[in-house]
Amino acid sequence: MPGKEGPNAVKPIRVALLGCGTVGTEVVRLLTDQADDLTQRIGAPVELAGIAVRRPNKHREVPEHLLTTDAAALVTSADVDVVVEVIGGIDPTRGLLLDALRAGKSVVTANKALLAEHGPDLFEAADASGADLYFEAAVAGAIPLLRPLRESLAGDRITRVMGIVNGTTNFILSAMDATGAGYAETLEEASRLGYAEADPTADVDGFDAASKAAILASLAFHTRVTAADVYREGIRAVSAADIAAARGLGRTVKLLAICERVTAPSGQESVAVRVHPAMIPRTHPLASVNGAFNAVFVEADAAGEMMFYGQGAGGAPTASAVLGDLVAVARNQVAGGRGPRESAYAALPAQPMGHTPTRYHISLDVADKAGVLSQVAAVFAEHDVSIAAVRQEGRVEDASLVIVTHAATDAALRSTVDKIGGLPVVRDVVSVMRVEGEE
Amino acid sequence: MPGKEGPNAVKPIRVALLGCGTVGTEVVRLLTDQADDLTQRIGAPVELAGIAVRRPNKHREVPEHLLTTDAAALVTSADVDVVVEVIGGIDPTRGLLLDALRAGKSVVTANKALLAEHGPDLFEAADASGADLYFEAAVAGAIPLLRPLRESLAGDRITRVMGIVNGTTNFILSAMDATGAGYAETLEEASRLGYAEADPTADVDGFDAASKAAILASLAFHTRVTAADVYREGIRAVSAADIAAARGLGRTVKLLAICERVTAPSGQESVAVRVHPAMIPRTHPLASVNGAFNAVFVEADAAGEMMFYGQGAGGAPTASAVLGDLVAVARNQVAGGRGPRESAYAALPAQPMGHTPTRYHISLDVADKAGVLSQVAAVFAEHDVSIAAVRQEGRVEDASLVIVTHAATDAALRSTVDKIGGLPVVRDVVSVMRVEGEE
Repeated sequence: MPGKEGPNAVKPIRVALLGCGTVGTEVVRLLTDQADDLTQRIGAPVELAGIAVRRPNKHREVPEHLLTTDAAALVTSADVDVVVEVIGGIDPTRGLLLDALRAGKSVVTANKALLAEHGPDLFEAADASGADLYFEAAVAGAIPLLRPLRESLAGDRITRVMGIVNGTTNFILSAMDATGAGYAETLEEASRLGYAEADPTADVDGFDAASKAAILASLAFHTRVTAADVYREGIRAVSAADIAAARGLGRTVKLLAICERVTAPSGQESVAVRVHPAMIPRTHPLASVNGAFNAVFVEADAAGEMMFYGQGAGGAPTASAVLGDLVAVARNQVAGGRGPRESAYAALPAQPMGHTPTRYHISLDVADKAGVLSQVAAVFAEHDVSIAAVRQEGRVEDASLVIVTHAATDAALRSTVDKIGGLPVVRDVVSVMRVEGEE
Repeated sequence: MPGKEGPNAVKPIRVALLGCGTVGTEVVRLLTDQADDLTQRIGAPVELAGIAVRRPNKHREVPEHLLTTDAAALVTSADVDVVVEVIGGIDPTRGLLLDALRAGKSVVTANKALLAEHGPDLFEAADASGADLYFEAAVAGAIPLLRPLRESLAGDRITRVMGIVNGTTNFILSAMDATGAGYAETLEEASRLGYAEADPTADVDGFDAASKAAILASLAFHTRVTAADVYREGIRAVSAADIAAARGLGRTVKLLAICERVTAPSGQESVAVRVHPAMIPRTHPLASVNGAFNAVFVEADAAGEMMFYGQGAGGAPTASAVLGDLVAVARNQVAGGRGPRESAYAALPAQPMGHTPTRYHISLDVADKAGVLSQVAAVFAEHDVSIAAVRQEGRVEDASLVIVTHAATDAALRSTVDKIGGLPVVRDVVSVMRVEGEE
């Protein structure tokens, strides 16, 4: 109602919200509950211009008159300054956000999959119109992580980002570690408790973590990294035996997202980005990150090691990250500035997983007779893989042999394990797992 | 040499550096080593216009022709866009930075004491000229913490900030915990190893942590909090007996900076900001923060709990934080925007320590006879302090009595301890320490 405003009233920031599920509802709640604070912090009030939903008749705790099914019209409406997207998925979200950005609307999104697949297109559209693109909520929920990477560490050289970025798999692995139960049983329990989706594929097969790894690597290394560049292994194959083997070595198993800057002897730099389960020492700070929490370690040349820890998902934490971005975008509109743009100037090549140096833990059931260790050790030598530690324990009929390697290329380690599995003296390969978080 | 530049060359960002000690030298090194990256990230090259030092003849690894003793002329020079201050102290730094800001130069500073005492003056000068004021390096060294508080959590309601923000005292307390040695002996060792200054007052008496707490509280609660508002107790009185008592209870002692939003029954909010040693459970994430590392816990309504961890001091980590701010300021100058301004609209009153709810651990040597516990317990009841746990152990001649209280006002707890110390059955008050980090 323009008639109510005086001539000096500050123009409000008008927000279109796309999606009104758990996160969207929380965004509306925070915008309402904190309206006065937000006005003070931004220098202008924030108002909801509309909320695009698919099913307008579903019960929601939001003002009904704001609901619309016409997302396409909403995102380009002259009445909208900022588009907040919490629908998720690639389509139709991609088209909506591109339209919004092209129309000069700044975008705040929590959509990790979209950013990991089509981030460059979104950035280009934002650049063309001078709009802002913020996405703190896309990785590690409420934990301020992308802003530190994009801004706080912008004067440093980041060498490594490693973390736990998926709450569902972390819940499952934490529970397996606590109870000794197997994967299938624990997944069922996680579903019952609401920690796993009915279709858990995106989480347990590592797709969600891989999207986040792509986003983290892009920001950390000033390079376009998409989901296709990320090596990905989920947790379906993690067994109770793997967890027990880790425990026996003072380690625990976590699904890690690892983004590394790798320098070849020639001086050529590349980025190696991967998601896979790995054993880490129980003394490592990531080891005590349990349940639905996320934590990310960042290493930079000057800053050294840092860790960021907090709630990685959920309506309120994700909404907090969305609101932080919304305040930033709104401040930019009030003050006439712009947030950081895509920074991909380094354009480093992606290193294939086979060339990436890793370390393996291998646990074998072997025949308890002379010469077994020498046969096994010969296979390692043949593949130029150096052994860091061996533990052999005899039992009545057979023996267990546990080997931890030094770093070698992942390809060499895989070939070694394949060949060892075929040795007649090896009865069973009980557990094979990468080892991280120690020298 | 302007003749070398084409007509479309981007105007470089010209930087005046004040101070060239450990941090300053690292700033120069990073500006040089990363010049190409910084140009790409900012969109313009960054150049040093001059370095103000007191003793120009001292050997330094920086270009000699940039050195000047005339800091006052440098900070207002037409050739300077940004002033980076790593001198420290209140005077003459305060005047230099006010002059710089008034002249429209953006300022990046690591000066916690200056910000905690005169932050509002600096912000006002920045606002008057439209300059930026950034100070990430002032708290927790390289750990991105202030940007998350000022920006990432700008849409949330922060309720608590608690952390370890002083590396020297953390080194001393970690060493006391590891060795069982007393304070004086451990301080001496810390000095020998370079972890404590010749005059350790600023660290061990909590002044440094109190300045940082004031800055954190100001940002978290959108309120002006100065060092004078911060309750401060250092670690000089922490004894080997305190550390041993903590260990016996599964706890460890840390010097904590705690900033809380407190809501009175009337609904009136205030801020309680304090620095003191406290016992925390060994299972608390802050317990494993050892040596010169810093870690800060942040709690917000929507985001929940977060932790930030990393190197809290040192030349390179501090320089990393300074460079991150320098990139932000430079980007703002290139893109025509401004960073966040002072946000003090909430103007919450400071709550005195006596009114602040805390919990105490009290360890007593008492006479081993009937009725001791009832006499001691009566004193607690008299002061309306509720007891959470008691452990009494008889010995040959006397007994030890350990009490952990529920939350009560600090004033009530202090009176209780004073009165208990005067009871004839109490032979010695072995240890009194606040308890944090548990329900």
